[in-house]
Amino acid sequence: MEIKPIGFIKTDFKEKFGIPRQSGIIENITGEIVFKKEFRHPDALRGIEEYSHLWLIFDFSENHRDEFSPTVRPPRLGGNKRVGVFATRSPFRPNNLGLSCVKFEGIKEDKNLGNILVVSGVDLLDNTPIYDIKPYIPYSDCKPDAKGSFGEALKDEKIEVFYHENVFLNIDEDIKNSIISIIEQNPKPAYKQQYKEYKFLFSDYEICFNISENKATILNIHKIK
Amino acid sequence: MEIKPIGFIKTDFKEKFGIPRQSGIIENITGEIVFKKEFRHPDALRGIEEYSHLWLIFDFSENHRDEFSPTVRPPRLGGNKRVGVFATRSPFRPNNLGLSCVKFEGIKEDKNLGNILVVSGVDLLDNTPIYDIKPYIPYSDCKPDAKGSFGEALKDEKIEVFYHENVFLNIDEDIKNSIISIIEQNPKPAYKQQYKEYKFLFSDYEICFNISENKATILNIHKIK
Repeated sequence: MEIKPIGFIKTDFKEKFGIPRQSGIIENITGEIVFKKEFRHPDALRGIEEYSHLWLIFDFSENHRDEFSPTVRPPRLGGNKRVGVFATRSPFRPNNLGLSCVKFEGIKEDKNLGNILVVSGVDLLDNTPIYDIKPYIPYSDCKPDAKGSFGEALKDEKIEVFYHENVFLNIDEDIKNSIISIIEQNPKPAYKQQYKEYKFLFSDYEICFNISENKATILNIHKIK
Repeated sequence: MEIKPIGFIKTDFKEKFGIPRQSGIIENITGEIVFKKEFRHPDALRGIEEYSHLWLIFDFSENHRDEFSPTVRPPRLGGNKRVGVFATRSPFRPNNLGLSCVKFEGIKEDKNLGNILVVSGVDLLDNTPIYDIKPYIPYSDCKPDAKGSFGEALKDEKIEVFYHENVFLNIDEDIKNSIISIIEQNPKPAYKQQYKEYKFLFSDYEICFNISENKATILNIHKIK
């Protein structure tokens, strides 16, 4: 079956490093879905405001592979234990389809781009193609008795983040909070144990930090545009 | 993007009439996902038993349309109110992708078909193409504070089902319970108000019933094979 994007999501995640492992983890990070012309009909979103949460079916566009690999090595398991691809949410999977639950924030009217759908709690790279948007229906989607696996236990394992106030000079408060939230969730690959400096892009900035014994220190932040 | 089924689900729903409006509504109805040869690797399911629930991304294969229609008329709203397609789970949508949450029941080894994944709470037509299977991750997928819309209010609106024990003569207890559950959820289109007889196929049977003032009566059940 041939599928085509209905639109693309604009986010501040300019590279994969730092993107939360699941949607909803960093609640305040927003994204804007801009519809392709042929799907840019104002009525297509009619009634969506009655829902608090939405599902996005998207393209793991940076992770296309030609060969089917039946197992993956989730970073959360240290990157050396193999798990079946259908037992993970890994981006390396047949058909490259991703699933994210985001919060509905509003609809923005744009003279040129039509109705833009604003959502929060995103875990998607900037310009990720979106194939479908569906309302989150609590009575069928919310399973309070559902049992999870290893991912669960690591949910709230945040690290402390240190910085000198100066590194955030002239940086918008929202962006500052997002950067701290990203580093707090310990974005370094689980199999890297040694002390190291990391760099990543977020919004218009390049952020440099290090992690040592579960304490992160932001070293500097540069504007890149 | 070109996507192809990883497999097909076998269910007792031989036609659309009677299929629950969402997954999980009739908990005891099971389905079996048979993988296509190229995806039939036993390791692809390794670790899946750690999860209680799974997401299925599937093809609304009976509802393909060439034209994009920005609105749909959900049967639950009486079939005459238009709602944006992205504000519903309607099968008539761009890219024809459906999303169902089902319960993991087990893995069946078959000499010819390989590992078959057994799930319950299905709302899928027999032979629906499956594009992906993902574990339900409670901490990101379960949103106890999520707000729903009109679909919510109608959740438990069951009708009474009457029948003479004879109609179920020689019919398996599981099938019997499923048939009663299907009729209990009032499968007639919401805009049909008048008394009428309905027929539908389930498993190897054709079931005939009528509905009058929110009471259903099973008239007869015929074996069709």
